[in-house]
Amino acid sequence: MENFTAYNPTTLHFGKGVLNQLGITINRFGKKVLLVYGKNSVKSNGLYDTIKHQLDSIGAEVYEYSGIKSNPVVQDVDAAAAIGRENSVDVILAVGGGSVIDSAKIISIAIPVEAPAWDFFERKMIPRTAVPLVAVLTLAATGTEMNQFAVLSNHETENKNGYGSPLLYPRHSFLDPQLTVTVPEDYTAFGIADLVAHCLEAYFGKGEDATLSDKLVFSIIREAIEYGPPLMNDLTNYELRAKIMYAATLALNGLTMYGRTSGDWGVHSIGHILSLLYDVPHGASLTVVYPAWLRLQRENLAHRIKFLGENVFGTGDVDLTIDRLEGFFRILGCPVRLSETKAGNVDPDEIFRVMVHNKAATFVHKLNVDDYREIIRMML
Amino acid sequence: MENFTAYNPTTLHFGKGVLNQLGITINRFGKKVLLVYGKNSVKSNGLYDTIKHQLDSIGAEVYEYSGIKSNPVVQDVDAAAAIGRENSVDVILAVGGGSVIDSAKIISIAIPVEAPAWDFFERKMIPRTAVPLVAVLTLAATGTEMNQFAVLSNHETENKNGYGSPLLYPRHSFLDPQLTVTVPEDYTAFGIADLVAHCLEAYFGKGEDATLSDKLVFSIIREAIEYGPPLMNDLTNYELRAKIMYAATLALNGLTMYGRTSGDWGVHSIGHILSLLYDVPHGASLTVVYPAWLRLQRENLAHRIKFLGENVFGTGDVDLTIDRLEGFFRILGCPVRLSETKAGNVDPDEIFRVMVHNKAATFVHKLNVDDYREIIRMML
Repeated sequence: MENFTAYNPTTLHFGKGVLNQLGITINRFGKKVLLVYGKNSVKSNGLYDTIKHQLDSIGAEVYEYSGIKSNPVVQDVDAAAAIGRENSVDVILAVGGGSVIDSAKIISIAIPVEAPAWDFFERKMIPRTAVPLVAVLTLAATGTEMNQFAVLSNHETENKNGYGSPLLYPRHSFLDPQLTVTVPEDYTAFGIADLVAHCLEAYFGKGEDATLSDKLVFSIIREAIEYGPPLMNDLTNYELRAKIMYAATLALNGLTMYGRTSGDWGVHSIGHILSLLYDVPHGASLTVVYPAWLRLQRENLAHRIKFLGENVFGTGDVDLTIDRLEGFFRILGCPVRLSETKAGNVDPDEIFRVMVHNKAATFVHKLNVDDYREIIRMML
Repeated sequence: MENFTAYNPTTLHFGKGVLNQLGITINRFGKKVLLVYGKNSVKSNGLYDTIKHQLDSIGAEVYEYSGIKSNPVVQDVDAAAAIGRENSVDVILAVGGGSVIDSAKIISIAIPVEAPAWDFFERKMIPRTAVPLVAVLTLAATGTEMNQFAVLSNHETENKNGYGSPLLYPRHSFLDPQLTVTVPEDYTAFGIADLVAHCLEAYFGKGEDATLSDKLVFSIIREAIEYGPPLMNDLTNYELRAKIMYAATLALNGLTMYGRTSGDWGVHSIGHILSLLYDVPHGASLTVVYPAWLRLQRENLAHRIKFLGENVFGTGDVDLTIDRLEGFFRILGCPVRLSETKAGNVDPDEIFRVMVHNKAATFVHKLNVDDYREIIRMML
């Protein structure tokens, strides 16, 4: 086992009706609130009214920034941070999925500085302080509600990058599975795939002696396999929504990583490029890349793929394990080839160029340009 | 799944040599340190010198309280709190196992008040604030290093009780598995049994729909079964010590409880009485009570025992599952009957009387006086 530090200060409020505690929670930080959200779905499903009611109950002074995109961009972050800065907000309330919460995390460290937020991503600037962030999650997928990471795109520089800092943990996150019952079929599936992919990035990282973390990875993936497909057939089922929502949080809140040095994150890195170029949803990009990545690594990582197969997919065969993972993604209704995504028929050379530009990297199992070509070929 | 709140602010520093960060960590809270420890083993094994070196490096002003007993008593807590109060300490440093850290937790809330610490246990007083607590763990067992609970005995009132408050989380806990390689065989075994028992208390609590928490329980118990017996044959093995130490932390840091309303804690409640009356080590008390408790509940909880058996003990048979759990405790070298403990031949009526006096209680599967008699009979 590798040395590790476990630290996660987020308070998670999970379950039916937990939003009734939102007002008093916000009030602990102050009354000037920057409310950040994305599309109008927040308004149409009644959530906006619930939030406003909670904010009104404490006499909050609310500044809004709406219109955060899926595959969020740094320009929105800069614009929202300016509003927060001008009005000296006490607290940020993010209402949405990973895109909104990731954006709000970077807004929280951008408000205190007079510089473009992308400077954090380019390591030109280190955050010293953050405006407290409270999150209301509406989509089970990324795990951002209980971790210190955020991912943004910058179309000007043609990058999609992750950023991490202990300052990025939300102070409080509210997870009412009832809020996710209106998530459409495709995004429900992408969320399940995303949580499985997060487990796999940890599992294929550095630290194979982290036997308990391996067992936790298997537990979370088994939960997704056991309850993901039933949920796809019963999208309004609260219990199934709750199981997947909690699994998604645990899949990337640090737990799968303790005792390891790092996750691999090569698949995410490549997936980000597909999102950047073709606006492929994050989860869908992962279900396309993972089978290809595993087939590329089938000899190098044979023992780990086999161990995964034995513990999760009922087989000790490497190729069958990969086939069954791909099959699981298909059962969910996720694309497993680029041609099945909205990207459709793409230019492999363009993907290659942007992979090289972004140095589509892994922390552990390094890829060279030949590997890039091979993965692109397999995922077309 | 039941609603839950997940909150655990403890920073865990895990691995070889982590104590080299102890001084600077303490220094964040101040220089006046109340150092609390137990027996002289801390001095004989060199740990005391390491600690002093770290404290000297920050110019700390150190006040000591040593002599905390295993099965710690509230009188030591009151005496130590008085020292901390007189000297207005900034921080408490607890060095030891569960007894020392549990004592230090109650010291941390007792220092700010002018009253006997037992008043907290009798609900005569609610803590408002706590002196920051930093812990150095020397025994893998209770999980106290990352939770909000403490257990103390009061021989005057003939009680052994638990107490919980969010104020009791250690701010930082240092876990170097190397510090546990000198733990003797019996206490190593008791620690492994203790962590398994903690998992079972959660598993047999209220909230059978917490399917992911069930899977995590199985993962932790399987880790103990996989690496506990090898450790008993190789007590100085760092890797095995590390696996058990981490498993013990996860077994009672909240993780096994999310999605449940409560654990059962009936076995602990009865075990505490054996410790109170006969000074039976905590872990040993649990290995005596658990088989008896499960046999008492074999019909009531048949479906849960069966599910445990299928996932951990390779059988779907209820009785065989209980036998195999008992067998596992035996393999570790733990007593499974009172006659095998230091208590030896005891007076069943005395146990019964003190069980009634302590209202040896469970949160979920209530026991009546006939159950008391039956459990006592089975554990003699």
